[in-house]
Amino acid sequence: MGLWFTEIEDNEISYGYKTKDVLFSSRSEFQTIKIIDTLAYGKVMLLDDLVMLTESDEFVYHEVISHIPVCLHKSPEKVVVIGGGDGGTVRELLKHQCIKDITLCEIDKMVTDVSKEFFPSLGKALEDDRVTVKIGDGVAYMKDMGAGEVDLVIVDSTDPIGPGEGLFCKEFYRSVASALKDDGLMVCQSESPWHSTAMLHRIRDNVAAGFEHRKSYIAGIPTYPRGTWSWTLAAKNPIFPEEYNRSRFDQVKAGLKYLNDGMMVSVFSLPNFYQDQVSQ
Amino acid sequence: MGLWFTEIEDNEISYGYKTKDVLFSSRSEFQTIKIIDTLAYGKVMLLDDLVMLTESDEFVYHEVISHIPVCLHKSPEKVVVIGGGDGGTVRELLKHQCIKDITLCEIDKMVTDVSKEFFPSLGKALEDDRVTVKIGDGVAYMKDMGAGEVDLVIVDSTDPIGPGEGLFCKEFYRSVASALKDDGLMVCQSESPWHSTAMLHRIRDNVAAGFEHRKSYIAGIPTYPRGTWSWTLAAKNPIFPEEYNRSRFDQVKAGLKYLNDGMMVSVFSLPNFYQDQVSQ
Repeated sequence: MGLWFTEIEDNEISYGYKTKDVLFSSRSEFQTIKIIDTLAYGKVMLLDDLVMLTESDEFVYHEVISHIPVCLHKSPEKVVVIGGGDGGTVRELLKHQCIKDITLCEIDKMVTDVSKEFFPSLGKALEDDRVTVKIGDGVAYMKDMGAGEVDLVIVDSTDPIGPGEGLFCKEFYRSVASALKDDGLMVCQSESPWHSTAMLHRIRDNVAAGFEHRKSYIAGIPTYPRGTWSWTLAAKNPIFPEEYNRSRFDQVKAGLKYLNDGMMVSVFSLPNFYQDQVSQ
Repeated sequence: MGLWFTEIEDNEISYGYKTKDVLFSSRSEFQTIKIIDTLAYGKVMLLDDLVMLTESDEFVYHEVISHIPVCLHKSPEKVVVIGGGDGGTVRELLKHQCIKDITLCEIDKMVTDVSKEFFPSLGKALEDDRVTVKIGDGVAYMKDMGAGEVDLVIVDSTDPIGPGEGLFCKEFYRSVASALKDDGLMVCQSESPWHSTAMLHRIRDNVAAGFEHRKSYIAGIPTYPRGTWSWTLAAKNPIFPEEYNRSRFDQVKAGLKYLNDGMMVSVFSLPNFYQDQVSQ
């Protein structure tokens, strides 16, 4: 058998990865952080022993959480990323020349430091001139922000347990809504469509506390529990996926490994069982 | 921890399911067959210790392997299912009144017997008047079939190791092509888009030996390795997913848990990394 890392979810299912080496293991003020090197997916970042990202499939998460909202916004210039200290989301945002200013608010400095060391293709994005990194609590950061300041808020959070819990509360989404300009967009990761109904309804209801209009989309991520993940866009105005900005997407699409013109719209096609959860 | 069943894939990744009970365990002439009762997914059928289906998510596989080819065919009346001894694919096919005659050729009688006992909502479909069950080798069955006899062949096979191996060979696809009428369609499960390039190219090349035109589609299945699965349609003529038969789909769609009109087309939208594999 050799060395295996095993993630256990709800004491019901487990995901194991044969591991060549443990490259880093420490405890920050907020969580345990490990970097392991696996046979199947290369280097993997674990926070509190949950897979956050792997070298092999991180492109899916980072492409869909960034290019979809950027291309659905009228004219995104100022972006806030809450969480996302690994830098992957910022790396994708920086591909868009229209984006002038990105502030990333990550609670745990060790995440950014470790990413720069072990995932330089992600972490080095945080050193770009257009990027400001603030180490602090994203809930407080959004609460203190002036009204109508931002075009796009990306909530690139961990699960709704541990340090990320506050990023799944009604009050937080109300702050995000207030910080956005009238034509602003918010996107958050919203767990697996196969997760418990109670969890999905809680996320849906809390986002709805801040935003009248919401639209969920999905993509397959092999190293996230249950293999399919969801994100939820929210805005003050209705969202029309088919109306994404083709010329903006044309400028970035050549380098993408997941998204293409077909996928930009088809990710919003939801299976019946999940559509029922988000629209009930 | 308690009792866990763990599936190990390529000695690199593992998937574990906390297990309440082992309901059945035996060895047929061809493989080991187990039925376990899990916390997360209810009853699970294991062949050679690989998950074949679970009560909770079998609907995805069975809906997409049946309704998509049925609705893309001009007028499907006579259908052959190779493998699929659990009965799930036949259950979905029977929802279409246009289908008059289904022959299922399953190599392992114990699979059909066990399914009738432990998954009656699938297995009982095999007792329908429109269905003939043949116990035997699907490769030989297709080879011996007369030319141009069938409208639709569904290859509902296990992985390309063990008893299912012959169903992934060039000779088999040539037999299928010969058995189909000129406007016939074939569909086979074609593993995960995240599987090794070598495996994906082998499947692609072997299907291509029998069919000039091919089209792959994908769906998320949480209990299959890597969480996303693929199927490949093949025909003598080009395949146009957008031109599926709406009125035929309208007659069955109310009872479906995965497919809807949007998904009927969006499943053909492939991420770049997989599109590259199938079209190279």
